[in-house]
Amino acid sequence: MKGTLYGLGVGPGDPELMTLKAHRLLQQVPVIAYSAPEQGESPARAIAAPYIPADCTEILVRTTKDGTSPTSESASDDVVKEIAEILLKGHDIVLLCEGDPLFYNDSQPLLVGLAEHFSIQIVPGVSSLSACAAALGSPLAARDEQLLVIPAGLAARTLTIKLSETDAAAVIDLNGHFAKVRDCLAVTGLLPRSRYIEHATHDRQRVLSLDQVDSEQVPRCSMVLMRR
Amino acid sequence: MKGTLYGLGVGPGDPELMTLKAHRLLQQVPVIAYSAPEQGESPARAIAAPYIPADCTEILVRTTKDGTSPTSESASDDVVKEIAEILLKGHDIVLLCEGDPLFYNDSQPLLVGLAEHFSIQIVPGVSSLSACAAALGSPLAARDEQLLVIPAGLAARTLTIKLSETDAAAVIDLNGHFAKVRDCLAVTGLLPRSRYIEHATHDRQRVLSLDQVDSEQVPRCSMVLMRR
Repeated sequence: MKGTLYGLGVGPGDPELMTLKAHRLLQQVPVIAYSAPEQGESPARAIAAPYIPADCTEILVRTTKDGTSPTSESASDDVVKEIAEILLKGHDIVLLCEGDPLFYNDSQPLLVGLAEHFSIQIVPGVSSLSACAAALGSPLAARDEQLLVIPAGLAARTLTIKLSETDAAAVIDLNGHFAKVRDCLAVTGLLPRSRYIEHATHDRQRVLSLDQVDSEQVPRCSMVLMRR
Repeated sequence: MKGTLYGLGVGPGDPELMTLKAHRLLQQVPVIAYSAPEQGESPARAIAAPYIPADCTEILVRTTKDGTSPTSESASDDVVKEIAEILLKGHDIVLLCEGDPLFYNDSQPLLVGLAEHFSIQIVPGVSSLSACAAALGSPLAARDEQLLVIPAGLAARTLTIKLSETDAAAVIDLNGHFAKVRDCLAVTGLLPRSRYIEHATHDRQRVLSLDQVDSEQVPRCSMVLMRR
C-alpha cells in the first residue's frame, strides 16, 4: 500500500485561519513538505509554524525560477524523488500549501505530477481571494454578477478589454505589473471602484486606493479587487 | 460601545473545514444568528452544529423569496431589529455564513445593511469554489489563466459567449438552469472539459460528467467547473 499525499491548504496568512481538518492532519502525519522560493523561507510553513509538531520530518521543496514547483516528471529533482520514496514505503505526507491548494497555488505542478502515481487528497483552505474580500469588508460580487480572476501578467490590451467586460474582478500576481494594472483600470474608468490589498489577514495587512500604492513596493501577497 | 457583528464563514459542508478562528469565536460569543430559506433548516447552522454551545442564544433569519436575506433597511423585519438591539446593547453576535461570507453568500445583504450602522468583522471561510476543486482534485486554473465565476441564471447567449472566451470557469447557482448550462457548454465544445460537482466535502459528494446529471435533480449545493 502506497502512502497518501495530502495537499493541505493552510489559509492566507493568519495561522488561526487554518481549518480544523488541516490542524488535525498536521498533528497526525509525521512527514511534512512545503515549497519555498529559490531563496528565503516557505510562506506556507511560516503560516503553519505554530502548529507543526517538534518531532516531525520536514522536506523543503525549492521552486524553480518561474515560481512553480518541480513536477514529478523531472526525475533529476532529488526532493521529488525523496517524496515519492516515502509514499512508496507506505507513509503519508502532508504538503503544506499557502491559501487553497488548487487556487493559483505554487504547489499545483507538484500535486498534479505526483497525482499521476500516487493517491492525493486535497484539504481545501481559505483562499487569498476570500482573505482580500474580508480585508475590504465588501462582497466580491452580488448573486447575479460575474467575477473574473485574472493574472496581472497578461498584456495590457487583454487586461483592459477583460476588465471593461466584467461586473467584478480580482487581479492577481501583481508583482512587477502593478503600474500596468493601474493604467488599465484608469483607462476603463474603474479606478474609483478598485482597491489594493496586501498581506490580507496578516498583522501587516493594508487596504489602499490604487493611487496610494508605490508600484515599486508591491509584495507577492497582494491583489486588486474591483466591483462596479 | 456597540457590539461587533462577526460574519463567520463556516466552510462548504464538512464541519471539520471550519477554521480555528471561527471555532474559537463560536465558543466565545454567546449569541449566534443564521439565515435559512423560507422553509427548512439553515445550511450554515447544520454545518456548525457540532460546535454550537448548548447554552447560546440563537436567532433564525428567514430569507425572502429571491433567496437573499432581509437588509437592515427593512425596519419591518423584526429579526433584523432584534439583531440591531443586541448590538446596540454592546453584545457581540456571530452570523454563521455557509462557505465564505463574501463569496456569493445569501447573508451578504444582511451584512452590508448592518455594516452601515455597526462594526462588522469578516472571518473568511473555505468557499464552495475551493471545495468543488478539491472534490475534483484538479486545479481551478494555471498561473497564467483566467478563471470566470458566472451565475447560471444569465441568458444562454451571454453564458455561451463568456464560456467561449475564458480559460476556466465555475458556473454557480445551477438550480433550475442546469439544462441550459449543459447546452451552452455543448455548443462551445467544452462539455468534455467540464465536470459537475454536488455537495462538495459532504458525505454525499458526487462528481459527474454533465451527461450523467439528471437536470431535474440538481441540488442547491452544486457547481460546474470547466478548464480547457
